[in-house]
Amino acid sequence: MTERINTLIAHGHLFTMQGAGVGYVADGAVAVRGTRIVAVGPTAELSARFQADETIDARNCAVLPGLIDAHMHTHLAIVRGVAQDVTHWMQKALAPYWDHTTSEAQMAGTRLNALEALKAGTTTHGDYGFPRPGWPEFYVELGVRACLTPIFNALPPRGLSSSKLGDLYEFDMQVGRRTLDNAVAFAREWAGAADGRITTMLGVHAPDMMPVEMLREAKEIAQREGWKLHTHLSQGDRETEQILKRYGKRPVAFVAELGYLDDQLLAVHLTDATDEEAAQVARSGAHMILCSGSIGIIDGLVPPAYAFKQAGGLVALGSDQAPGNNCSNMFNEMRLTALFNKCKYASPTVMPAWEVLRMVTIESAQVLGLGDKIGSLEAGKEADVILVDLTAPNLSPILLNPIRNIVPNLVYAGTGHEVKTVLVAGKVLVRDYAVLVADEAAIWAEAQRQAEAFERRVAADPRHKDMALMQAMAAGQL
Amino acid sequence: MTERINTLIAHGHLFTMQGAGVGYVADGAVAVRGTRIVAVGPTAELSARFQADETIDARNCAVLPGLIDAHMHTHLAIVRGVAQDVTHWMQKALAPYWDHTTSEAQMAGTRLNALEALKAGTTTHGDYGFPRPGWPEFYVELGVRACLTPIFNALPPRGLSSSKLGDLYEFDMQVGRRTLDNAVAFAREWAGAADGRITTMLGVHAPDMMPVEMLREAKEIAQREGWKLHTHLSQGDRETEQILKRYGKRPVAFVAELGYLDDQLLAVHLTDATDEEAAQVARSGAHMILCSGSIGIIDGLVPPAYAFKQAGGLVALGSDQAPGNNCSNMFNEMRLTALFNKCKYASPTVMPAWEVLRMVTIESAQVLGLGDKIGSLEAGKEADVILVDLTAPNLSPILLNPIRNIVPNLVYAGTGHEVKTVLVAGKVLVRDYAVLVADEAAIWAEAQRQAEAFERRVAADPRHKDMALMQAMAAGQL
Repeated sequence: MTERINTLIAHGHLFTMQGAGVGYVADGAVAVRGTRIVAVGPTAELSARFQADETIDARNCAVLPGLIDAHMHTHLAIVRGVAQDVTHWMQKALAPYWDHTTSEAQMAGTRLNALEALKAGTTTHGDYGFPRPGWPEFYVELGVRACLTPIFNALPPRGLSSSKLGDLYEFDMQVGRRTLDNAVAFAREWAGAADGRITTMLGVHAPDMMPVEMLREAKEIAQREGWKLHTHLSQGDRETEQILKRYGKRPVAFVAELGYLDDQLLAVHLTDATDEEAAQVARSGAHMILCSGSIGIIDGLVPPAYAFKQAGGLVALGSDQAPGNNCSNMFNEMRLTALFNKCKYASPTVMPAWEVLRMVTIESAQVLGLGDKIGSLEAGKEADVILVDLTAPNLSPILLNPIRNIVPNLVYAGTGHEVKTVLVAGKVLVRDYAVLVADEAAIWAEAQRQAEAFERRVAADPRHKDMALMQAMAAGQL
Repeated sequence: MTERINTLIAHGHLFTMQGAGVGYVADGAVAVRGTRIVAVGPTAELSARFQADETIDARNCAVLPGLIDAHMHTHLAIVRGVAQDVTHWMQKALAPYWDHTTSEAQMAGTRLNALEALKAGTTTHGDYGFPRPGWPEFYVELGVRACLTPIFNALPPRGLSSSKLGDLYEFDMQVGRRTLDNAVAFAREWAGAADGRITTMLGVHAPDMMPVEMLREAKEIAQREGWKLHTHLSQGDRETEQILKRYGKRPVAFVAELGYLDDQLLAVHLTDATDEEAAQVARSGAHMILCSGSIGIIDGLVPPAYAFKQAGGLVALGSDQAPGNNCSNMFNEMRLTALFNKCKYASPTVMPAWEVLRMVTIESAQVLGLGDKIGSLEAGKEADVILVDLTAPNLSPILLNPIRNIVPNLVYAGTGHEVKTVLVAGKVLVRDYAVLVADEAAIWAEAQRQAEAFERRVAADPRHKDMALMQAMAAGQL
């Protein structure tokens, strides 16, 4: 007797990500009931066992767990492309734009970024920022999985753009109190919303952006509540300089003394950490989020993720932000991560394709504390599944034996635009390249309208003349 | 009175690549008559001046000269994805596959690769390989521009795969004579075919792959015929070792003595060249072709293109080959080139977006000796034009003032799939994402059929057990 299910994804090249590799299943199927996967295996077996309301033909497709972008600042997508090829990225390029955006413009950016990521196969959006009106509700409605981190800091209004390069930041404890309380309230309110599709963490903006007392308080709250602390750490020479000046030690040593190094910590970037510091963080049980594209563009650096992994740590990938990445696309992050690290170590065997594929699926799920829910195709897990069309000319031909070429081609040739169909929690959000859950044209039009409004304000602000890219504009290079 | 033209591309964000930057024209138009551009300028002006048989609406599109891929081995696309994450890429991964492909399989690879490149906006295909049946005819029929380089060497059958690692190659002068004569005949026959859409060069496979007498003869022929010499040079430690063992000097010094260093030379890779050697080649007037993706994957190295440019040389970009790149996509090459060089020099200002855009348009045209025909949008040049849809979420929003964000977004966020319309020599080859000049499904099916045939032969050849990736297969990593 056959069991009823909602959906059978059949005849695909399955990469279940079970086990220590990629868990390939030839002519494989995924059975979905409600929000969950009920079985994974050969199509012949599952077809006999289940009767599905709908069968999705995955012939000549790779079938993968939905991709996970562990660290995004989606609201910044509204200023995509204003801050690259420059030094002092934040102060000399991003900040003057940022100070003229409104919360509506930021939400328009979030919608644009989420759409972009969804179309490229990202099913879990690790969005990181100050809570703003409509932010969680948008994800509830869109239907993707979101791991939201409300952040806090004690920087005065206009934050970093108002302080001179090299000066110690002044802290504003009113801001600190308000943003910490907001973040805590948000993390409580939205944890587990939308039947668990929304999860939350607590976001320490960075160790240099608040007084030590606030860092201690945040750690106590997180420990009491059982929350992860999602923290930029050792994110660049600016932070190192601030922490050195203020406390006489480097960032990793500083947060170690505060008790931050444990399995509750998600350390983002570690750009300015030495290999030994990275290994110290890894050995503590903390996880790392690596943003290869953004750190490559902003700093011209390759963070010590290889050392972190060598020390036994887990690394997830993140797309960071659009002004200085400039995209949210995990195919891009996989490729850049594999290639940057090969070039850093002058070795083609460093960070092979399968390793970076694990870093956007099963291992990033574990990093986000969602390893029991997502990250692999496995009975009992949530049905977050993507189909990638392997008949796209850049992914062809399909070779299976003696060498299977699919994973290397996904990593080194995939662009994300070959993602054909996307399911999150069993629901089809994208079918045959058509986004079913958002009005793409409306999202674009609203983003464009908002952009045109704030760019007029930027042009009217005399500070814009100091932006680093003004020289490139004058020279006809943009 | 208005002048009749065939096509007016109107209301685009034009990047003409005229001048020293990117030559932006707001609300710009391109007028096309026959195969040529007759005018470029503001839409208002050109609309008043011309009456067009067809107007292509380029609103919210970037309009660019067609992209140029200066160095491709298109036939290798049939073995895409069999040779990455390994050392000894050629001998331990590619060669065992390659030895089982037929010339039909190779042509199926060429069609696949050309289709992939065309869809990503490549209008000039710099294809490099042994002449084979149907090769030039395919490009004539497809309608793209092709700069074909027939190659020759004196390696025995099964070439490099039969020699032990580290041994000096034996030369086979029968092969040498035959392949040189073939290459010369091919270069003569096809130069200027299809109303000039097909051009040719002479391809010295590499200085280590033939005796010194042949290298001398090739230079004499090229000089006599006025052909460029398109040559892998200093392409890796294998070549350096061979040349050192045989002649007691390094590759650049060796070819310098043979008189190769002049403006006739296109030096591909220079992977193993020092900065000083690269500068020496550049100062001679020779040009460089940089294949960032393939050298990153195969060697984990960033060739000295920055030093080459600093010394005043021109650099074009190439996608090389699919087993070890793994795609032919100039957006990918632009992004990797900009980012690899930032990371090599730990500086975000190295190789800014506009520079790499010039490297796939006007500068690569000059490298290929086609600077008077293509590479910019300019009256009198051939009408090779692409439209890129800037409403794609990853390229949005469009900001124009005070900072124009289009070029950075094309380079750092573009994937090639936003290329909407492609014209070559005035003819529309791709319109609104639909390829008008090839049967995509048939190209895929034939490539897949060929692939399945030769993979059976590989699996039956006991040599396959020594392939480096067999370990990854056994470990479930592919």
